[in-house]
Amino acid sequence: MLELGSTSLIIVGAVALIAVVCLAYAVVLRRQVLAAGEGTRAMQDIAQAVQEGAAAYLNRQFRTLVFFAVAVCLLLLLLPGDTGIKVGRSVFFLLGAGCSAAIGYLGMWLATRANLRVAAAASLPGGRAEGARIAFRTGGVVGMCVVGLGLAGASIVVLIWRGDAPAVLEGFGFGAALLAMFMRVGGGIFTKAADVGADLVGKVEQGIPEDDPRNAATIADNVGDNVGDCAGMAADLFESYAVTLVAALILGKAAFGEQGLVFPLIVPAIGALTAILGVVITRVRGSESGLAAINRGFYTSALVAAVLAAVAAFVYLPSTFAALPGVGASLADHGGDPRIVATGAVLIGIVLAGVILWLTGYFTGTTSKPTQHVARTSRTGAATVVLSGIGVGFESAVYTAGIIAAAICAAFLLSGGSIVLALFLIALAGCGLLTTVGVIVAMDTFGPVSDNAQGIAEMSGDVSEEGARTLTDLDAVGNTTKAITKGIAIATAVLAATALFGSYAASVSEALADLGETVAGATGVTGAMLSYEIINPVTLVGVILGGCTVFLFSGLAIDAVTRAAGAIVFEVRRQFRDNPGIMTGEVRPEYGKVVDICTRDSLRELATPGLLAAFAPIAVGFGLGVGPLAGFLAGAIATGVLMAVFLANSGGSWDNAKKIVEDGHYGGKNSDAHAAVVIGDTVGDPFKDTAGPAINPLIKVMNLVALLIAPAIVTISVGDDANHAARLGIAVLAAAIAFGAVVMSKVRAARVDSAARLEHEMELVRD
Amino acid sequence: MLELGSTSLIIVGAVALIAVVCLAYAVVLRRQVLAAGEGTRAMQDIAQAVQEGAAAYLNRQFRTLVFFAVAVCLLLLLLPGDTGIKVGRSVFFLLGAGCSAAIGYLGMWLATRANLRVAAAASLPGGRAEGARIAFRTGGVVGMCVVGLGLAGASIVVLIWRGDAPAVLEGFGFGAALLAMFMRVGGGIFTKAADVGADLVGKVEQGIPEDDPRNAATIADNVGDNVGDCAGMAADLFESYAVTLVAALILGKAAFGEQGLVFPLIVPAIGALTAILGVVITRVRGSESGLAAINRGFYTSALVAAVLAAVAAFVYLPSTFAALPGVGASLADHGGDPRIVATGAVLIGIVLAGVILWLTGYFTGTTSKPTQHVARTSRTGAATVVLSGIGVGFESAVYTAGIIAAAICAAFLLSGGSIVLALFLIALAGCGLLTTVGVIVAMDTFGPVSDNAQGIAEMSGDVSEEGARTLTDLDAVGNTTKAITKGIAIATAVLAATALFGSYAASVSEALADLGETVAGATGVTGAMLSYEIINPVTLVGVILGGCTVFLFSGLAIDAVTRAAGAIVFEVRRQFRDNPGIMTGEVRPEYGKVVDICTRDSLRELATPGLLAAFAPIAVGFGLGVGPLAGFLAGAIATGVLMAVFLANSGGSWDNAKKIVEDGHYGGKNSDAHAAVVIGDTVGDPFKDTAGPAINPLIKVMNLVALLIAPAIVTISVGDDANHAARLGIAVLAAAIAFGAVVMSKVRAARVDSAARLEHEMELVRD
Repeated sequence: MLELGSTSLIIVGAVALIAVVCLAYAVVLRRQVLAAGEGTRAMQDIAQAVQEGAAAYLNRQFRTLVFFAVAVCLLLLLLPGDTGIKVGRSVFFLLGAGCSAAIGYLGMWLATRANLRVAAAASLPGGRAEGARIAFRTGGVVGMCVVGLGLAGASIVVLIWRGDAPAVLEGFGFGAALLAMFMRVGGGIFTKAADVGADLVGKVEQGIPEDDPRNAATIADNVGDNVGDCAGMAADLFESYAVTLVAALILGKAAFGEQGLVFPLIVPAIGALTAILGVVITRVRGSESGLAAINRGFYTSALVAAVLAAVAAFVYLPSTFAALPGVGASLADHGGDPRIVATGAVLIGIVLAGVILWLTGYFTGTTSKPTQHVARTSRTGAATVVLSGIGVGFESAVYTAGIIAAAICAAFLLSGGSIVLALFLIALAGCGLLTTVGVIVAMDTFGPVSDNAQGIAEMSGDVSEEGARTLTDLDAVGNTTKAITKGIAIATAVLAATALFGSYAASVSEALADLGETVAGATGVTGAMLSYEIINPVTLVGVILGGCTVFLFSGLAIDAVTRAAGAIVFEVRRQFRDNPGIMTGEVRPEYGKVVDICTRDSLRELATPGLLAAFAPIAVGFGLGVGPLAGFLAGAIATGVLMAVFLANSGGSWDNAKKIVEDGHYGGKNSDAHAAVVIGDTVGDPFKDTAGPAINPLIKVMNLVALLIAPAIVTISVGDDANHAARLGIAVLAAAIAFGAVVMSKVRAARVDSAARLEHEMELVRD
Repeated sequence: MLELGSTSLIIVGAVALIAVVCLAYAVVLRRQVLAAGEGTRAMQDIAQAVQEGAAAYLNRQFRTLVFFAVAVCLLLLLLPGDTGIKVGRSVFFLLGAGCSAAIGYLGMWLATRANLRVAAAASLPGGRAEGARIAFRTGGVVGMCVVGLGLAGASIVVLIWRGDAPAVLEGFGFGAALLAMFMRVGGGIFTKAADVGADLVGKVEQGIPEDDPRNAATIADNVGDNVGDCAGMAADLFESYAVTLVAALILGKAAFGEQGLVFPLIVPAIGALTAILGVVITRVRGSESGLAAINRGFYTSALVAAVLAAVAAFVYLPSTFAALPGVGASLADHGGDPRIVATGAVLIGIVLAGVILWLTGYFTGTTSKPTQHVARTSRTGAATVVLSGIGVGFESAVYTAGIIAAAICAAFLLSGGSIVLALFLIALAGCGLLTTVGVIVAMDTFGPVSDNAQGIAEMSGDVSEEGARTLTDLDAVGNTTKAITKGIAIATAVLAATALFGSYAASVSEALADLGETVAGATGVTGAMLSYEIINPVTLVGVILGGCTVFLFSGLAIDAVTRAAGAIVFEVRRQFRDNPGIMTGEVRPEYGKVVDICTRDSLRELATPGLLAAFAPIAVGFGLGVGPLAGFLAGAIATGVLMAVFLANSGGSWDNAKKIVEDGHYGGKNSDAHAAVVIGDTVGDPFKDTAGPAINPLIKVMNLVALLIAPAIVTISVGDDANHAARLGIAVLAAAIAFGAVVMSKVRAARVDSAARLEHEMELVRD
């Protein structure tokens, strides 16, 4: 076991202290947010309903997921390995999952209180800056908690397990990622089913505006913003944080020894401090847009983080690779300076974050060409809006993926060709990206809070025209910040997954060495199963299947939304029909019923994508071998990054194209052009808020599952015939679970198919 | 040089003879088609205009491409290698390109004559069977020519070059694939720009029906069907045929020696004979649907082909691997029976074709659940139509890709773990698929010919209501057969590309051996460049970039259509405005102007995707190395198959959902539901007929480029610093060409942006 020196222990302790500072600052910010005015009685009533719906949903979701978490926890104990580490890993799995859940809950809790306050602030004359401040501070609380809990978890593990920390941290990261994936999928289905359902009946059929209190689905729509965009995104970014740290610590130990275990903690600790700075300095000045203020906060804190990281590298790391412990022979030959190389890697990550921020803003912002082009195509109808949005999505996905690929190449060039070092540097670049996460979370939460505030203002009818314009403004900024966060989240996913990829290979070699075998020595089917060569056709099969998983996952998520939205359309229409007083405004619709349908449907649809993500890599790994499983991961990463950005940015672009038209261009509200952009926006809803963002945790869950099962695959592959039978048995079982879940979802779809219900209803209308 | 025995030479001679028989049968069929009645004067006038427009477009396209072909031909001579082979390869490159062009031209020529005859036949009472027969026979001519020219080319090369045939055939396949890609892209942009433009002004703005003669874009729309769907698809399938044969011959030589060079010719020769059978027996009986007749022809000929292939294997191949010449040590250990293994591989291919046929029919047919579901979502508006169609596309892509992956795995299992054998078996499975190509081409050409016939009937106004219904029926069958062909084409693309992947590795090893180096022996950056290990982060970068290329290519194609369609909208609106007599039917619109715009725009937009496909692999290969280039190909194949099937099937499903509504369901024509499915169909147009099908040749072009440049990359990678500088220079130059083309296309887009023209026009309207 690798022991840590006293300097290292002091540094790790200091990191833990910074984590505590972050959490304390979160408490301060929370108080500031809650101290703001709560607006009129009508506003408070609406906010109350949203709070209750959101809390009820999350509570039911957590109850559902507890069983799943316990089952996985027990499965983890079945894997081969040292018992002490296994128990630690299982405990930290639960802890990771718990932290993800807690942060999600906190994000929802605060957002459902802040929305009201933002609406109240914006309704006062000149309240624009104050509204933006509250929305951003709310995000600050969540950001500080993400950073604080992530850092605290990692540093405590390192303090307790020292050199064995990486194995235990795998559990922490896995728990965080798995829970975040479920929250993303479930919350995503909830929010978009409500949103799409509300729009289809409200705007399209009845011609009443968005967030009109006569629409029974409006409260559900606002609940959805909180459980999907706030809770889901907070859990997702916490998971990104945890998994990237885990990857960096695993690879750091292999490449730099003790220093490699400590340095990746220093970088995000610096990021935690600069995030505080970022939140403090982000203030809207005069009439500048909210986006300009946020960008200033982001770039300033990123710059300071870069400088401090360089200082830390030069103070903490030795000047030659030969002086590092635990480094392979190839590194000693490197001849470079570890301080420069490490600083370079962190800088790559920070620059990557900045470039993605700029790029996403460019593709989805209301003031830049691509979205204006999408808005302009509204004159030739909905088809051209859909096509141009898809074009923007494809294009931005290519540039984003290309830039992430360039960052990986740059890290590789820094390594001088050593794979071990290259992987660590990629993980360090991920840590560099993480330095910006505090501000990013704050930016992201900004979106749903302003969206909700707009909803509350509209429903209550207590907001002046100027206040409404302010809120629309903030909401548009929120659309872009949400897209940016998705871009950053997918970038960390790719970097973390690429780094984990390396840990996976190390884990395989270690298992083989324990068995006295080598990859090169194996022949026949076993040899093919253990070969990493990409030109092996079975590896290519793995790549294809990895891509398939991403497509299937996305398709399932989109279908789930369409289906649940159909159920909501049915319910809202029923309420309008059964109670004509709703349309005249005399009777309040039964909001709670729609919230119940959303809750029930999204929990039901949650399992399929989750089981697919967890069991597909097991089926591929045991069925085809470690090489094809590596191919599977590569295919999932490549297709995943493209698909995630495509879905996020085309959705973001459609949403803002709608804002442009609603702002009075091309005919403004209620024109043909408006109808066209509303269709685009509705198509984009499940793209950007359900399928797209869930791909990010998906990639990491699959990578972590692969990492955890790698030794078991190797052990069983090189064994005798009985082992091979067991191997195939596991593969078939896993495939049956993954695919069975998909089939079950189809069967259920056929049964509860909203289409059938619509059929029924059409008959009622005809009678 | 491997010499062929006299038995082999006789067999190859017999194959050449079968090729001649196919071409002769094509002449017979052509006479039958042309002998049918030509309908009324009005029909003939319209057909004449379509013929002239299509011929003019293809002539201009070929003139543009001649320069490109000659340039590539000269570049091929610059690659390292034996001069005799290089000259042969360059000559056969031109020959392959020429055959692709000739078949495309022939397909267009005949289709523009058959459309009229199908319309005439269908307009007679009870003319349904006769109409279907003519449409299918027209396809038969093209199918026979594809098979005949492909077989003739391959057998002649084998007769002349014997053992060196594979190297020369690379040129033949590359020429065919490159030209087919350009024809697919150019024709695809033409056809969908015209179609979308016509729909946007006609159906959406003016409320006149599809193919109304008052719409200035209708002739262009019909021309597009012929240059895109007929000429493009014929060239595409010829290219699939040629490249699969090339891959099988290269790998057959490595695995089975002489027998491996001859057997892959026997299988498609059998397919040629059974294709004749399939065309002869395909007759619509009584009131059965056209699809049932086509399916019967397909399955019968596939079954006969399977039996004959088994017989051929048992007669021609020896019973043990040890008896085969030129086989590696791993094969002699195999212990299996080459006859059984080869038969198994061919069967895999034939079964794969059958399964894809069924699966695509299921997902896109008017009578099956998925498309009916899409049609039903039209009640909740266009957004749900778009979303449900995307869901169907994703799902069908996953199943199709999964089945292709299963076929690769099955071939691998048959090989008992030997990579050399596995790759040959995959190529043989491709040959098995090829046995069905004759019928497939016939099925595919059915689609545009019936579509055109419907157009001519509608425009001439000379067709009875019953005749119109018959043509709508045939057109719906055509939508499904078109989707099926795309599925089969992408399956051959994946099998051929996977097999070529193996040739690529062999080519790298050979080049290394010539230099006295090994992949394992190289270290540092060079080692990383030569490593095939998928866990190398740079290989992963390759996978990501491969996926990026497919996304960018698709996005460019879709954008090009949107842009060109905008120009057409502008022109048609202008004609309506400048000449009010058009709307009243007194004045004939200027059809030729729209055809000219389509021709000009599609030729202009053609270059960018083409340059991207040709130069991206060069940039990756020289910039990152052979391993990352392999990753690039794997990423392109995996993303490509998913994207191609997604685009083809969601488009096919939307198209047929529209047919369902137009058939009187959910309100029928001119209802809200109809408006929703028209939007879905318009979104699907560039999906299914421009971007989707072009991905198939794209994958093969990139694989063949990689195969051709592999030795050059190896030679330059292991060299000294000067070589490394040259390597980087080539990479930067290639990247600049590929990316420069994309940038140029953006710049042009900004200049000629249809949106800007629309802006201008709106002002005119306002004045």
